[in-house]
Amino acid sequence: MAKVAVLGFGVVGGGTVELIYKNKEKIEKSAGKSIDVKYILDLRDFPDSPFADKVVHDINVILNDDEVTLVAECMGGVNPAYDFVKGCLERGKSVATSNKELVAQKGAELLKIAKEKNCNFFFEASVGGAIPIIRPMHQCLAANEITSVSGILNGTTNFILTKMINENMKFDDALKMAQQLGYAEADPTADVEGLDACRKICILSSLAFGKHVYPDSVHTEGITKITPEDIEYAENWGGSVKLIGTVKKLDNGKILPLVAPHFVCSENPISSVSDVFNAVMVCGDAIDRAMFYGRGAGKFPTASAVVADIIDAAKADGTSISQVWEDAGTQDFIDDYSNCRTRMYIRLSGADKSAVEKAFEDVEFLARENAPSGEVAFVTNEMRECDIDEKLSAVGGEVLGKIRLLEV
Amino acid sequence: MAKVAVLGFGVVGGGTVELIYKNKEKIEKSAGKSIDVKYILDLRDFPDSPFADKVVHDINVILNDDEVTLVAECMGGVNPAYDFVKGCLERGKSVATSNKELVAQKGAELLKIAKEKNCNFFFEASVGGAIPIIRPMHQCLAANEITSVSGILNGTTNFILTKMINENMKFDDALKMAQQLGYAEADPTADVEGLDACRKICILSSLAFGKHVYPDSVHTEGITKITPEDIEYAENWGGSVKLIGTVKKLDNGKILPLVAPHFVCSENPISSVSDVFNAVMVCGDAIDRAMFYGRGAGKFPTASAVVADIIDAAKADGTSISQVWEDAGTQDFIDDYSNCRTRMYIRLSGADKSAVEKAFEDVEFLARENAPSGEVAFVTNEMRECDIDEKLSAVGGEVLGKIRLLEV
Repeated sequence: MAKVAVLGFGVVGGGTVELIYKNKEKIEKSAGKSIDVKYILDLRDFPDSPFADKVVHDINVILNDDEVTLVAECMGGVNPAYDFVKGCLERGKSVATSNKELVAQKGAELLKIAKEKNCNFFFEASVGGAIPIIRPMHQCLAANEITSVSGILNGTTNFILTKMINENMKFDDALKMAQQLGYAEADPTADVEGLDACRKICILSSLAFGKHVYPDSVHTEGITKITPEDIEYAENWGGSVKLIGTVKKLDNGKILPLVAPHFVCSENPISSVSDVFNAVMVCGDAIDRAMFYGRGAGKFPTASAVVADIIDAAKADGTSISQVWEDAGTQDFIDDYSNCRTRMYIRLSGADKSAVEKAFEDVEFLARENAPSGEVAFVTNEMRECDIDEKLSAVGGEVLGKIRLLEV
Repeated sequence: MAKVAVLGFGVVGGGTVELIYKNKEKIEKSAGKSIDVKYILDLRDFPDSPFADKVVHDINVILNDDEVTLVAECMGGVNPAYDFVKGCLERGKSVATSNKELVAQKGAELLKIAKEKNCNFFFEASVGGAIPIIRPMHQCLAANEITSVSGILNGTTNFILTKMINENMKFDDALKMAQQLGYAEADPTADVEGLDACRKICILSSLAFGKHVYPDSVHTEGITKITPEDIEYAENWGGSVKLIGTVKKLDNGKILPLVAPHFVCSENPISSVSDVFNAVMVCGDAIDRAMFYGRGAGKFPTASAVVADIIDAAKADGTSISQVWEDAGTQDFIDDYSNCRTRMYIRLSGADKSAVEKAFEDVEFLARENAPSGEVAFVTNEMRECDIDEKLSAVGGEVLGKIRLLEV
């Protein structure tokens, strides 16, 4: 018999409670014990909910109830989620969270407390929603040295880019449509500026390389500057534009986490991931590469991951099986992106091809219909970003577009 | 300290031993203890191998050594692997296997023994090679009622079909190329007739629905009859031809496992999985759908999955965490495919469209360049397979191609 408290009765918290009762038989069979929700913590009351009698407003009710051994944190945001989760773990209660902001900011500390208190801190739902990615990386790929992780980590921006690609919409129009459909919030900053993807790549980076990567340390670019022209050139090159969260191990031993739009070639299965779907490609020395694809958000997809964590925590009762990663103190194991090598798509106005060839030598020029005279678009060879910028200032003209190419 | 015995020193067994020593530090950190290979069982000697001194020829050396708690079975085939694995499990030694034939034939029995003896029987490597699929289905999707599992489960046939699709090769020529490249064996029957994919869908079916599905119970068709014309029509329809292993839950409570070529529409990410890559799509009531993609075979990809299982078994020391499924005695929970509903592509010679329309009513006719007169190709609505066959005999003409459509 395991008693669960659910913190936050919004979309994900509500889905979690519903799912526990909808598939109770299957869930209890997997867990090997009965599972019941004892408390739902929320500021609000829900008099019309069938679970109204479980709603409490004071975290101390949960903290002080020894019968509650499992906690699902579905509140979002760092505060007060951090205090609540910390309090639960300190009392030996295992926590499953869907809160990427919390994990990205406080993961190392919370994992350490879980280990000390012999309980578990799980966060499968914090990246990729329904997609199993945290546990597969931790368990199934444990025999690999991970070399890189790259993926589409935000469904809202992928929806917007899909509309721009398939229907030639402009960014502003596609964003409006996403808002109308409920995929984007009234203030879309966290999605379109890449902050949400940044939190997720922090989690994946920490998991893959064992040291906590903080969001402030990750160079992050959103999709607000992407134009239909860039998308046309991407097609001419043989791919599409996707917002990619990526991290790779460098030859110098450091890592480079990055969130930015990328040209993704059509042979890469990530290029065909459309609408609100997410996908994560993991490369390792033994597996070569494996990709995980599915719904990155939504009530039941996210709840599915939270409940899977609850089941695992129920099974692991009394043993700490969650991973740990170190809080390295500094972030000097992260390299400066401008020193790192990449291939780059560049679109210029008021420039000419001969100047481009003189500065960059071997480039691949791209074409689109009805390009105005003086517009030059091309893809560079692999070189350091700072060298690309230096060469660009030698070429002159105005930079209208500048997008990295994703390595396979 | 955990001591491992590896049964079979072929490609996968050799890769397993190599990988354990290549990534020893990472692997031991994950396992929380040191891991060493104590024995390698093979009929042959390997005097030039750095592991020559570990080679033994008698399984009893391993069975009677209490220090060996973990066994990697990489021999293949049911016998003598079955006796060896059974002997290990009965002595409380956990086993990780890459042997799909063994799991498909004896899985229920071996899982039962593992549970009784408080050890583990893991088989992540038996389906999809490097792709994490067994553990994600067992753990990460545990809160879902699975509704269907479908995928490309055999790399050899996917390579052949890719050559037929991209280079207009005929089946025989593509097979020869696969043999030259070492992707297909001299006797390619198990691959091209679908038997290998059948074993894998048996394992996935048993895992998804909790009752052992035996290979004899699964209607299995290979790819030997697929023609370039079929592939042209698939393109005209908007997809490609893939060999699919699939199982779904039916409204009558039974399940339908099946291995056969399918038309897969290009919106389905499975359609763009090419060459020797595998992919598995799992649908569940909470997640909607999730796909897992990667290398389905090969030395280190498969070894990666074996070693991940070894790590999990080392961590679980003394507790049985592997799943169980029931041996239901009969197979009457499997429906007869001819009673089940599907959409079907059909190609006829010596027939005319009006007869097709009369028999099938609402059909979608397909076209290809240079089709001879009297050739009619079309896609039916969803109906029972036996009804399709009955209508076909009313239409007359010769059936040149008949391929199911994969539901998303």
